[in-house]
Amino acid sequence: MFTDFKIAMDRPLTIQVKEYMKQWITKGKGRVDQKLPSTRELSVLLGVSRNTLVRVYTELEEEGFIYTIHSKGSFVSQVGIASVPTWKMSWSEHLNEKAIQASELDLMKHDLRGVKGMINFATIAPDEKLFDLNNVKRAFLDRMAIEGEVLLNYGYAKGYKPLIQYLHNYMETKGVDMDGKDILITNGFTEAYDILLSSLQVKSRTILCENPTHHTAIKISKLHGFEITGIPMEQDGIHLELLEKALKEQPFGLAYLTPSYHNPTGIVMSAEKRSEVLRLLAEYQVPLIEDGFNEELRYSGSHVAPLAAFGGSGNSIIYLGSFSKILFPGIRIGWIAADRELIDYLVSVKRARNIHTSTLDQAVLFQYFHNGNFEKYLKRAKHEYKRKHQLAVEYCKTYIPFKRMTGSGGLHLFIELEDNCYVRDILQDCYEQGVVFTAGDVFYTDGGGANTLRLGFSRVDDEELLRGIQIIGDAVRRRM
Amino acid sequence: MFTDFKIAMDRPLTIQVKEYMKQWITKGKGRVDQKLPSTRELSVLLGVSRNTLVRVYTELEEEGFIYTIHSKGSFVSQVGIASVPTWKMSWSEHLNEKAIQASELDLMKHDLRGVKGMINFATIAPDEKLFDLNNVKRAFLDRMAIEGEVLLNYGYAKGYKPLIQYLHNYMETKGVDMDGKDILITNGFTEAYDILLSSLQVKSRTILCENPTHHTAIKISKLHGFEITGIPMEQDGIHLELLEKALKEQPFGLAYLTPSYHNPTGIVMSAEKRSEVLRLLAEYQVPLIEDGFNEELRYSGSHVAPLAAFGGSGNSIIYLGSFSKILFPGIRIGWIAADRELIDYLVSVKRARNIHTSTLDQAVLFQYFHNGNFEKYLKRAKHEYKRKHQLAVEYCKTYIPFKRMTGSGGLHLFIELEDNCYVRDILQDCYEQGVVFTAGDVFYTDGGGANTLRLGFSRVDDEELLRGIQIIGDAVRRRM
Repeated sequence: MFTDFKIAMDRPLTIQVKEYMKQWITKGKGRVDQKLPSTRELSVLLGVSRNTLVRVYTELEEEGFIYTIHSKGSFVSQVGIASVPTWKMSWSEHLNEKAIQASELDLMKHDLRGVKGMINFATIAPDEKLFDLNNVKRAFLDRMAIEGEVLLNYGYAKGYKPLIQYLHNYMETKGVDMDGKDILITNGFTEAYDILLSSLQVKSRTILCENPTHHTAIKISKLHGFEITGIPMEQDGIHLELLEKALKEQPFGLAYLTPSYHNPTGIVMSAEKRSEVLRLLAEYQVPLIEDGFNEELRYSGSHVAPLAAFGGSGNSIIYLGSFSKILFPGIRIGWIAADRELIDYLVSVKRARNIHTSTLDQAVLFQYFHNGNFEKYLKRAKHEYKRKHQLAVEYCKTYIPFKRMTGSGGLHLFIELEDNCYVRDILQDCYEQGVVFTAGDVFYTDGGGANTLRLGFSRVDDEELLRGIQIIGDAVRRRM
Repeated sequence: MFTDFKIAMDRPLTIQVKEYMKQWITKGKGRVDQKLPSTRELSVLLGVSRNTLVRVYTELEEEGFIYTIHSKGSFVSQVGIASVPTWKMSWSEHLNEKAIQASELDLMKHDLRGVKGMINFATIAPDEKLFDLNNVKRAFLDRMAIEGEVLLNYGYAKGYKPLIQYLHNYMETKGVDMDGKDILITNGFTEAYDILLSSLQVKSRTILCENPTHHTAIKISKLHGFEITGIPMEQDGIHLELLEKALKEQPFGLAYLTPSYHNPTGIVMSAEKRSEVLRLLAEYQVPLIEDGFNEELRYSGSHVAPLAAFGGSGNSIIYLGSFSKILFPGIRIGWIAADRELIDYLVSVKRARNIHTSTLDQAVLFQYFHNGNFEKYLKRAKHEYKRKHQLAVEYCKTYIPFKRMTGSGGLHLFIELEDNCYVRDILQDCYEQGVVFTAGDVFYTDGGGANTLRLGFSRVDDEELLRGIQIIGDAVRRRM
């Protein structure tokens, strides 16, 4: 009895003993009405002070796990676990199409993942070494001092008001006319896109997008039963003639575009093309979801305003923003900036899904912005990423025999190999040598891209960058 | 030019000026290639030091908003906002049934809400005055010191590993056999229930539950196209004969039950009834979703194990847990403890919805538990809530002429008035006198409950409690 109790060093002892005894009782190791050892006896048995055990017994009694009879001792209560018939079912037979498809399309389950010690080009998460933890701590403590109780209690489905106000201003600084528009805070881009597609009823179940495009967007579109038509890209963005041709040929319910540092190609759509794309979408009356992905990670060239800014006082553009790739992905914050009437419906959808996004996250992020940390961080991060971007470009040009390489900003490059290069084989070869990247086919809407790959460079150091790219280059040459 | 610039006291000045000038440029107030005032001139105009302005101009140039010609000055860049045709669409005509229904069923939009200064019995959120902010701060700082970079970067869809481990142990302490089971962390109960219903395909689209029941569960069930059959409740939980009758009459795809401190009635299902309910569900092969709501807020009587503990090694019970009502709702953490195979699918569904729950939230909560704060907080909170509960019971007995009152724990009481009392009228009367509560009809699955109300007492002080209940009592008497 009580021989398997082990003490962990970094937790209050009372809690450890109490938990141990609760489990002993709830797991039925002690009979109902069984007499427990006295605190004196137990003190010897567990090697724990009697004072602690007196406290444990008192609390176990308060919580209804044991009862005490004066001058007789303490006894196990009836905690109510009776033996009932149990049955097993096969859950895999009780999942619907959508859940099964979500599992099938889950890249984390099916794609080669980087493991510790490998050179990992598969991720485009920010480099955590750049994180300014002290400023995040400062922001947290500042905000907690201002309204800690508010942060920990229920908030609003629409979002934390100071952050909404900040983002409103942020969108205006990007040149977006926010008159008649509003903002909904979401758990990152993914939730924003998912909430939108689950709520809209548009004239066609086909979405028009760039080809290739963000694989999460492809996945979510499919899960909501949308067809996807991808339009090839040129060096300055989507191919206009092919876009117009597609618009003529069939109706589209929505367009989804990532005009800046596009994922996976890293291409920035030119200002001229932005105007022209919007003109076409207006002509064919196709509303647009703009993915503001990495817009901030510009390393050179003029600032280009988002499509939502070009859209002026119109309301057909829905802008999805996120700081995940720039700031802290662990803080799950994204937002939808769109027509006020639309946002009002989406707020109810959001509330029915998870009440609201973590107020703590929103508040820490707001205060971090408010304290002026974002601008400084971004400057430092851009400096480092730009340096790495240049290195990566140089190494790829030197070591990888490619047909085309794109990526003028952001955290990745996109490489198209010769047509006869099957990238899945190359990935397999590299994986065996401790290098992983993303095979480009997952970004294609039409089964293409077998000869393409995405190289995320944000989380590899300089030495790994060189060695990894050399290994990839060698593998490509062997498979050519 | 630049006459409307205003300085806010609590933000870095460089950022304020830069933001102001960016908006001036992106909003097209300055022409492309227009010459900007020199930093010397601008310094006089804005009343800002020249040093600051030199920094602003440098950064604006780095970010591509302006360009500088040596010895000529700085000029506005082409930021690419051209005039394009804009169009407006009516978004309310482009929302699907589900989004419209989510808005229609959104109580926050349609029910009378408490406003500042009112006596608010409508909320059952925890009393924020009880929050131990210093321990939350401590937990945050402790965890940030251990692995701050990890908390801010991407995590796992399933959840933050230390928290999963903690909850695993927590479930075992409740007596739940976790062999073959696993845990998925969600954004609170709401997301847990929503993810489940969106993923399951069960033999019937009808859910069996208690009547009344949690209105959020009713809402989400309806949004997923489920019918709901509610079984009346007795003083010790669901009515067994009526439950058996319902099971005989029609097939149910799922059962949804809240055995402890049930919302809204506050009833605790007896241990005997728990066994019997599980026996019946096993006989008719109906899987169960158990809502662990407020299980911890027990003020008296024996500890009663959750249904999931009674279920032993079976896998037909899905337990949904949340600390929202006990701890901090602003930290959006709930969890699903269920069959491992099922969880594996749900992980992919979760990933497709929002990648993962905020790591920061999960980590702070984990460290708070690990530091032993939860037990202490719970003790203090229960002490205070128990006191308020007793007061509320006493005042209701004295001032409100009711037919039945239930609620032996938790943060609310549920009152059934005489049949001829229409509670919506009473609520209207009370509202005019500054008192708000929840009309009980929103909890009923069958349109009943017109004479019932839920009184949440967690966030009213003693004096308000007395005055509020007197006002309600008077209103009831006038309407009888």
